Amino acid sequence: MNASMRELALAARDAAAAIAALSTTAKRAALNRMADEIERQCAAILAANALDVEAAIAAGRADALVDRLRLDPTRLAGVAAGVRAVADLPDPVGQVTRRETRPNGIRVERVRIPLGLIAMIYEARPNVTADAAALCFMAGNVVLLRGGSEAFHSNQAIAAALRDALRASGLPPAAITLIEDLRRESVLELLQLTDLVDLAIPRGGESLIRFVAEHARVPVIKHYRGVCHLYVDASADAELALRLLIDGKTTRPAVCNALETLLVHADLAPAFVPRAVAALRRRGVQVRGCERTRALAPDVEPADEADYAAEFLDLVIAVRVVDDLDAAIEHIRRYGSDHTEVIAASDEAAIERFVGALRSAVIMVNASSRFSDGGELGLGAEIGISTTRLHAYGPMGAEALTIERFVVRGEGQIRHAPDE
Amino acid sequence: MNASMRELALAARDAAAAIAALSTTAKRAALNRMADEIERQCAAILAANALDVEAAIAAGRADALVDRLRLDPTRLAGVAAGVRAVADLPDPVGQVTRRETRPNGIRVERVRIPLGLIAMIYEARPNVTADAAALCFMAGNVVLLRGGSEAFHSNQAIAAALRDALRASGLPPAAITLIEDLRRESVLELLQLTDLVDLAIPRGGESLIRFVAEHARVPVIKHYRGVCHLYVDASADAELALRLLIDGKTTRPAVCNALETLLVHADLAPAFVPRAVAALRRRGVQVRGCERTRALAPDVEPADEADYAAEFLDLVIAVRVVDDLDAAIEHIRRYGSDHTEVIAASDEAAIERFVGALRSAVIMVNASSRFSDGGELGLGAEIGISTTRLHAYGPMGAEALTIERFVVRGEGQIRHAPDE
Repeated sequence: MNASMRELALAARDAAAAIAALSTTAKRAALNRMADEIERQCAAILAANALDVEAAIAAGRADALVDRLRLDPTRLAGVAAGVRAVADLPDPVGQVTRRETRPNGIRVERVRIPLGLIAMIYEARPNVTADAAALCFMAGNVVLLRGGSEAFHSNQAIAAALRDALRASGLPPAAITLIEDLRRESVLELLQLTDLVDLAIPRGGESLIRFVAEHARVPVIKHYRGVCHLYVDASADAELALRLLIDGKTTRPAVCNALETLLVHADLAPAFVPRAVAALRRRGVQVRGCERTRALAPDVEPADEADYAAEFLDLVIAVRVVDDLDAAIEHIRRYGSDHTEVIAASDEAAIERFVGALRSAVIMVNASSRFSDGGELGLGAEIGISTTRLHAYGPMGAEALTIERFVVRGEGQIRHAPDE
Repeated sequence: MNASMRELALAARDAAAAIAALSTTAKRAALNRMADEIERQCAAILAANALDVEAAIAAGRADALVDRLRLDPTRLAGVAAGVRAVADLPDPVGQVTRRETRPNGIRVERVRIPLGLIAMIYEARPNVTADAAALCFMAGNVVLLRGGSEAFHSNQAIAAALRDALRASGLPPAAITLIEDLRRESVLELLQLTDLVDLAIPRGGESLIRFVAEHARVPVIKHYRGVCHLYVDASADAELALRLLIDGKTTRPAVCNALETLLVHADLAPAFVPRAVAALRRRGVQVRGCERTRALAPDVEPADEADYAAEFLDLVIAVRVVDDLDAAIEHIRRYGSDHTEVIAASDEAAIERFVGALRSAVIMVNASSRFSDGGELGLGAEIGISTTRLHAYGPMGAEALTIERFVVRGEGQIRHAPDE
């Protein structure tokens, strides 16, 4: 008999005040203990992972999924190292972001406090269990983890190690709770707990995100598609643009900050497109292009509307020649997913117009889309990349798992003069 | 035939890029023009308002509602002055909140951009039409305004003035759109437009907020109940506590930052409760108390669970004697609405424990709950007071109508070394 989501959430919530009140030192000690426990329980975690991997292979799952699922001693050491890295982050809780003394003498401070109870809903990769739990914990939150069925045993073993570390630290294990009920109904129930769950973070494929977004009554920050563009301006350095193109498209095509579409200014197209297509092809990338692209690089397959909107997550790219910067902006506004856009250009006016006209979470000027990542951008770690234009937009680190509130100190100030 | 919500939202969204790109100077000029137009169209607005007031009286609506609805030349001048005050606010758009150069040389900036399209859903008071439109506009957003039926003609007249000012400024009037379709279905439709609406802000009574929260598929920041507490510690200065009590409860009982419950430390209760009850009674406040309160101040009516959870919005208060600070914290955690809590105390340890243990949006230490207001706390203006623990918590000013995104500048940096 599974515990109901409400029971699990209530137990987590009961632990919330204790976790929120922890000192930075205490949180760091507990996180380092979690990393130690992951290493100490290495054999058990790998054995559990083997069950998941076998089941995935038996079920005929794609190699890419099996690979994402698989842990080995090196990867597990990486998971533990990730938890230790979170322990070294600055503690966002208690940070005073603003101070002001008002004319009446009251001192107004904005102070970061934890969000509270976070429900993390994710898929295949078992490392997310440790990463998300660690980051939520460092920000003073309690977390309900709802991983995918493929990684069930791995998640169970990792969560057990984390909870052992909480217990050994004298902290309530309910602060990190793995939901073991894998029915879809349990997610549905979780998403209705508006009195308990402060934030749901879905992270995974499109159908997962859609399911959560459609059914949630609790606040949701989506970690959705990255249809990332590289626009190569007439003023671009072609070598630089080529480098960004290859890095963005080919180094890890299955991640959300990989490039999906190349837009090339018509003036540069005759010189750039043939080289770009050849370089992509040499690396096994399938190129789908507009008519003008195809005129410049024969044997390119035709691109259609669906290709421009696609997050290929694979060695496939759409290429389009555009008349000018405005046409590039219009294309991105129409087909983009507000995740990450790149401009290669040397013309400052073009750069500023590109930055100003687009509302994507991350704009890269002469830098690779692959830097759209919490670690690369200086957040230390990330729980994901938000495409929700509220609270946090782009890579979300520990700070984005807190909220600023007001603490006001006075000496008896009142708003209206007393009437007696 | 009413325009569909999708059509109105699409038209507003078409105006969004132009508004987002406006300079501070252009926004200030347009806002001052809006204030001018409100004054210039004073007669038309007051005539429209008279229709609403007559209808409300004819419908037998409560005096308090009729009063909130009524405009006169002085109040309308106040509305125009409010719009001019917004024009004087610092422009949050374009603000760089952080800058960092990473080891690889890329420069990472966090820059504020507008949220986009905001749907404001509110009730009776017609001044909200101008206030909300002005604040959204200053933050570079476009706004759909869905006011209540009671203020329909007033809202129409005010919106007409605002849109005339937009036109005169050469800006698309769709940037400020009043929804004239007053059917509940239209709100429902609006709340489903996840591809167009970036944020819905409901502001009004409990049933409005609940309706929006239950039906919205777009992100919502609720402006919900304020069940605000004053805790008088054993270490409190009784005179100071009494001043906070009277200011918090009696100066404007119908607003959300008014006090609803008084908690008194048992040690101070014999000296404080009789004085407090007498002072409240002198100002016409009905007092409902726990058994210990009633033992100290006879003729106090008994308070029940419902009284502790109530937002009276009236000259009624619940009073409870608590054993100690922990009991006060427990009471507030149980019955509070996370809006604003006040402690009167001189013991620093007690103060810090109160601040740390509670997760309310605003904590006042020896200052009146009535300062829980964007203007009083230095935001210049507010669109409301968020009780949603995400994005903005507590009074929301212009800055809370923007989001930080990443702008990264490099010289061709890539994440992986090229393989050739």
